Amino acid sequence: MIVVMKRDATRENVERVKEEARHFDLEPIEMPGDERMIVALKGDERKVVTGRFKSLAGVSDVLPVLKKYKMSSRDTKWEDSVVDLGDGLRIGGKQQVVMAGPCTIETEPQLRAAANAVRKEGVRILRGGAYKPRTSPYAFQGLGLEGLKMIRAVADELQMKVITELMDIRKIDELCRYADIIQIGARNMQNYDLLSEVGKCGKPVMVKRGLSATLEEFLLAAEYIVSEGNTNVILCERGIRTFESEVRFTLNLGVVPILKNLTHLPIIIDPSHAMGRREYVTDMALAALAVGSHGIIVEVHCNPEEALCDGPQSLTPEMFTNLMNRAEKISAAVDMPLVRKY
Amino acid sequence: MIVVMKRDATRENVERVKEEARHFDLEPIEMPGDERMIVALKGDERKVVTGRFKSLAGVSDVLPVLKKYKMSSRDTKWEDSVVDLGDGLRIGGKQQVVMAGPCTIETEPQLRAAANAVRKEGVRILRGGAYKPRTSPYAFQGLGLEGLKMIRAVADELQMKVITELMDIRKIDELCRYADIIQIGARNMQNYDLLSEVGKCGKPVMVKRGLSATLEEFLLAAEYIVSEGNTNVILCERGIRTFESEVRFTLNLGVVPILKNLTHLPIIIDPSHAMGRREYVTDMALAALAVGSHGIIVEVHCNPEEALCDGPQSLTPEMFTNLMNRAEKISAAVDMPLVRKY
Amino acid sequence: MIVVMKRDATRENVERVKEEARHFDLEPIEMPGDERMIVALKGDERKVVTGRFKSLAGVSDVLPVLKKYKMSSRDTKWEDSVVDLGDGLRIGGKQQVVMAGPCTIETEPQLRAAANAVRKEGVRILRGGAYKPRTSPYAFQGLGLEGLKMIRAVADELQMKVITELMDIRKIDELCRYADIIQIGARNMQNYDLLSEVGKCGKPVMVKRGLSATLEEFLLAAEYIVSEGNTNVILCERGIRTFESEVRFTLNLGVVPILKNLTHLPIIIDPSHAMGRREYVTDMALAALAVGSHGIIVEVHCNPEEALCDGPQSLTPEMFTNLMNRAEKISAAVDMPLVRKY
Amino acid sequence: MIVVMKRDATRENVERVKEEARHFDLEPIEMPGDERMIVALKGDERKVVTGRFKSLAGVSDVLPVLKKYKMSSRDTKWEDSVVDLGDGLRIGGKQQVVMAGPCTIETEPQLRAAANAVRKEGVRILRGGAYKPRTSPYAFQGLGLEGLKMIRAVADELQMKVITELMDIRKIDELCRYADIIQIGARNMQNYDLLSEVGKCGKPVMVKRGLSATLEEFLLAAEYIVSEGNTNVILCERGIRTFESEVRFTLNLGVVPILKNLTHLPIIIDPSHAMGRREYVTDMALAALAVGSHGIIVEVHCNPEEALCDGPQSLTPEMFTNLMNRAEKISAAVDMPLVRKY
Repeated sequence: MIVVMKRDATRENVERVKEEARHFDLEPIEMPGDERMIVALKGDERKVVTGRFKSLAGVSDVLPVLKKYKMSSRDTKWEDSVVDLGDGLRIGGKQQVVMAGPCTIETEPQLRAAANAVRKEGVRILRGGAYKPRTSPYAFQGLGLEGLKMIRAVADELQMKVITELMDIRKIDELCRYADIIQIGARNMQNYDLLSEVGKCGKPVMVKRGLSATLEEFLLAAEYIVSEGNTNVILCERGIRTFESEVRFTLNLGVVPILKNLTHLPIIIDPSHAMGRREYVTDMALAALAVGSHGIIVEVHCNPEEALCDGPQSLTPEMFTNLMNRAEKISAAVDMPLVRKY
Repeated sequence: MIVVMKRDATRENVERVKEEARHFDLEPIEMPGDERMIVALKGDERKVVTGRFKSLAGVSDVLPVLKKYKMSSRDTKWEDSVVDLGDGLRIGGKQQVVMAGPCTIETEPQLRAAANAVRKEGVRILRGGAYKPRTSPYAFQGLGLEGLKMIRAVADELQMKVITELMDIRKIDELCRYADIIQIGARNMQNYDLLSEVGKCGKPVMVKRGLSATLEEFLLAAEYIVSEGNTNVILCERGIRTFESEVRFTLNLGVVPILKNLTHLPIIIDPSHAMGRREYVTDMALAALAVGSHGIIVEVHCNPEEALCDGPQSLTPEMFTNLMNRAEKISAAVDMPLVRKY
Repeated sequence: MIVVMKRDATRENVERVKEEARHFDLEPIEMPGDERMIVALKGDERKVVTGRFKSLAGVSDVLPVLKKYKMSSRDTKWEDSVVDLGDGLRIGGKQQVVMAGPCTIETEPQLRAAANAVRKEGVRILRGGAYKPRTSPYAFQGLGLEGLKMIRAVADELQMKVITELMDIRKIDELCRYADIIQIGARNMQNYDLLSEVGKCGKPVMVKRGLSATLEEFLLAAEYIVSEGNTNVILCERGIRTFESEVRFTLNLGVVPILKNLTHLPIIIDPSHAMGRREYVTDMALAALAVGSHGIIVEVHCNPEEALCDGPQSLTPEMFTNLMNRAEKISAAVDMPLVRKY
Repeated sequence: MIVVMKRDATRENVERVKEEARHFDLEPIEMPGDERMIVALKGDERKVVTGRFKSLAGVSDVLPVLKKYKMSSRDTKWEDSVVDLGDGLRIGGKQQVVMAGPCTIETEPQLRAAANAVRKEGVRILRGGAYKPRTSPYAFQGLGLEGLKMIRAVADELQMKVITELMDIRKIDELCRYADIIQIGARNMQNYDLLSEVGKCGKPVMVKRGLSATLEEFLLAAEYIVSEGNTNVILCERGIRTFESEVRFTLNLGVVPILKNLTHLPIIIDPSHAMGRREYVTDMALAALAVGSHGIIVEVHCNPEEALCDGPQSLTPEMFTNLMNRAEKISAAVDMPLVRKY
């Protein structure tokens, strides 16, 4: 940690900083500069109470040197983490995976049709929401438990794994019974009690990045789960909020190489929610693979015009087949083969 | 709702839009333009499944005309809502109120000292966190139930009301026993189950705006509470996330006149979290009153250098006294007298 | 154009809107709704003085239906525009092109080395700045005219075309003498006098998107050039400013399919400036091709540690060769073959 | 400057950093930490070529300690700068000033009416655009030279000073003849040739902050002018671009106390452009004074419905009188008396 003093800081101000440093077992080193005194603090700065130094008289700035997350950091574990779903299905490492299915579970025929369509293309992870976080209290909120049972049954039939969203901490046991991967939505990325709880349950968890979360906050959300002992964490970038209004969210693919540098956890991209229109989803899905992510999660609906939620961004089965065929070539070009299991 | 067709939309595309409109009890009106056909849909568009029209072939754009929130809207209730806390304390209408206290409840002496300091200046609403949403799992997480009991005791002693944050839906009963106003933090603004639950409990609720929530999303969060029957909702702007890095968050005071135009609910500003340094908090607090908000919530600590959380942004008692004296003049200048009850 | 009246708008307010509409040769059509009156205005709304209707009493909102740009719009010209540079070199349509070279022209040996390195990989468009827009007045500002002569000489020797930036409107003739494509930097995207002037000169122009320009503003900047008669305009996305701080700018690849839908002009992506570190540039360059852009512009330096500007983001020749080889496969996967001319 | 090495940096990497430091006359000090080596560089880091260190092998991060601007910095000049316009008119220091007038000069009667209205309230600085930066090439571009002559004549008649915008560097002499303060618009904040040129002319200059400029970039724009010898620079915050869509721009009043801490230059706020609707302008103008700025610049039009530009946000004379009366009280409350000269 580097403490930059104000130009007019006194000797007493500097001594106070050094005293505080020792209080936290940090060794202070004075570095008088031409214009300002700098005090470097040696040791594990993560133990320091945030803001303690910034609050001291004569202090201009405090620059942290270490990252606040530890177990999620590439510094702690050098090799890529791979989340094992069983039955030979893995997420992470030197391969790319596709998760697909409808946005929302509406009816069994609707779900089964979409599941068949994606299974046919070698997809083995079925997505589908039973609990839906809707901006408006007047919108369709999902089928709940009934939906969970439906997706489990269809997935078993087709030998697929299930990923579905958990919203309410009180429903965690219920969800664990039916899902293979628990999804934490962007709106709950900083619902810390929920994160701790899924950290305790042991199931693989995919955390979606909050709409305006920094990468540090994103990795600290993962850290809440990992620090409870659950290392099966998958990160998912799904778009951030910017002034850009022609797309719903700005999918920042640039974070993929950066996250791969910062953390050992796998990174999945969701192009459907960001782009908002199916015409745009395929192009962005291909880019998400070309940039080197560990895979994508996309919405597929056999009759998008009838969808109860997010119809405009759902791919039709034909579009999905086309996507998979191109995706395979892209994955090959970046040396991360696409997983297709028929 | 206005449906703008693509330039090359066919007659069939237009008919399909009209058919879909009638399905939702909307009356379609064709408006052929020089370059594009427009179909205006007359009726209550809030019943429409989002995206249904956008998903149809030949549709270029869909422009909503009505706001999605209803009960929170100024259209529904013309007069300002005033939240009555009892004992002659009210938030909203033609007056400005100050809530103050420490960021976090640390110890009873610390809490009592801060409470005394703000009570002395005529503040009757005491803030203080027992459960703290911390970005890092390794940071101090608050005293919990013990803290709630402490703040209730100190507040009763000084004839003050208590505002404190609820994070975990499972703690709602506990919190209702000790608090007068339940605070929903920015990170939980879209935790819909939590919102519905506090909507059922009847207590006054202050909802903080999410870091990147639009005003529509903000008002829909309020709508989740109001639609459960709890009309005692207070809105709180606490800063949004922008590229600006010299402040922690960009406090957008410009939303105050706009929100006052859109909704009848009272609006409180939190300048402490956004500004991050106490030297800046007073200036921004005064601006928050000058712009016509219904009040402010500020952090006060008698010994900020020792604070376990947010020390750098906490005002000292001397700074707080100075703020209150200036605030009174600003409030008078905008014809919304400052509430000070000794 | 759709004019939404306030809930309490009077008959007179509506009549005034209709009168104003007729003043601009628009035909007003009343559409009384359940909650609000809507007046649709039929005709070419681009002639309307902005804000005229918004300023009228009783008006709540004005929703434009047509885009403000005309000649750059896909509505006006359906087929892709292709910019012809001569000697069989073209930008746009169903192929992808690479422009490469050093950020800044420093010395002739430095320039020649980089030019040779990219020429060897089949690149025929050489980039290099003679005038540099530097944030600080104390930074290296470029070699100016001397640099222009240098890059022209090297390019001629290697049978390459030159793209270089114009900053000062007074230097336009000078630059036109030495460049094949004039680059307008992001900071000058709304320097309207400069845009009009390059619109008159006839040379191909590549306009970089401003750091916070909307797509409409971006296309209107192009429109300034096109409306002067110069249709050889290339758009370049180079990253927008968001709260994201781990990358310098957020490269929004999602705008590529959207721009391709809105305009017929070719779209180039600059991954170097956004990513800031060479380790990240290759991944993002491949994504930029996978998403379907018409090409990329990247910085290459034979000795980046010695670069006077933007060294950290410049690719080494080895990295560039690797990029080109992968790029070729990506381009094939999206059916837009990569142009490599040896 | 603090250089943070990667966890796996070698001895050679560290030595290379130290060698490079000495090359720039900086003294390197090694600070071995528990997890990473840190090398602190003592001396004037402003001479360092940006990115030189970031480009070296084994370097993880480079943290600058000093600000890049020098002459605009509060470190260089402790006392507030005051720009003297002559005739007893001053901007800066412990007072607040109002500049007002129409957005655009349309006709002499229109200009004179607005000028009279604001002069009557004690305003002595008249604003009005002769050259207008319009997003669309098809919009009204201003009266040009004729407009300059008009505003000079009206201002002289009423003993007022003139502030008006310079866009085209070739028009600088013309503008200097007619204006007392040259305004550099937000879109030209990084038009460096223009900045240098107005730096040479000596006239007071008001620089508007770019829509997405950081405070450092803003102050470096001022530095371009000051470093040419012109110290009469006024800063103007006019709103930044964020995801917020209900206002045109997000006016970040929080930068006022921060800028006052960083620089000695006066800071003016423009609430008109950000708010977009006159109903909101007054509230925000008062907040802009309460936060401690050195004044505001507002648009006034006697017949806003007929305005050729920005009518919706122009105050009527009645609204302006009301604003001035309230402003006077706000200014008194923050101990920065409002300048009104009848």
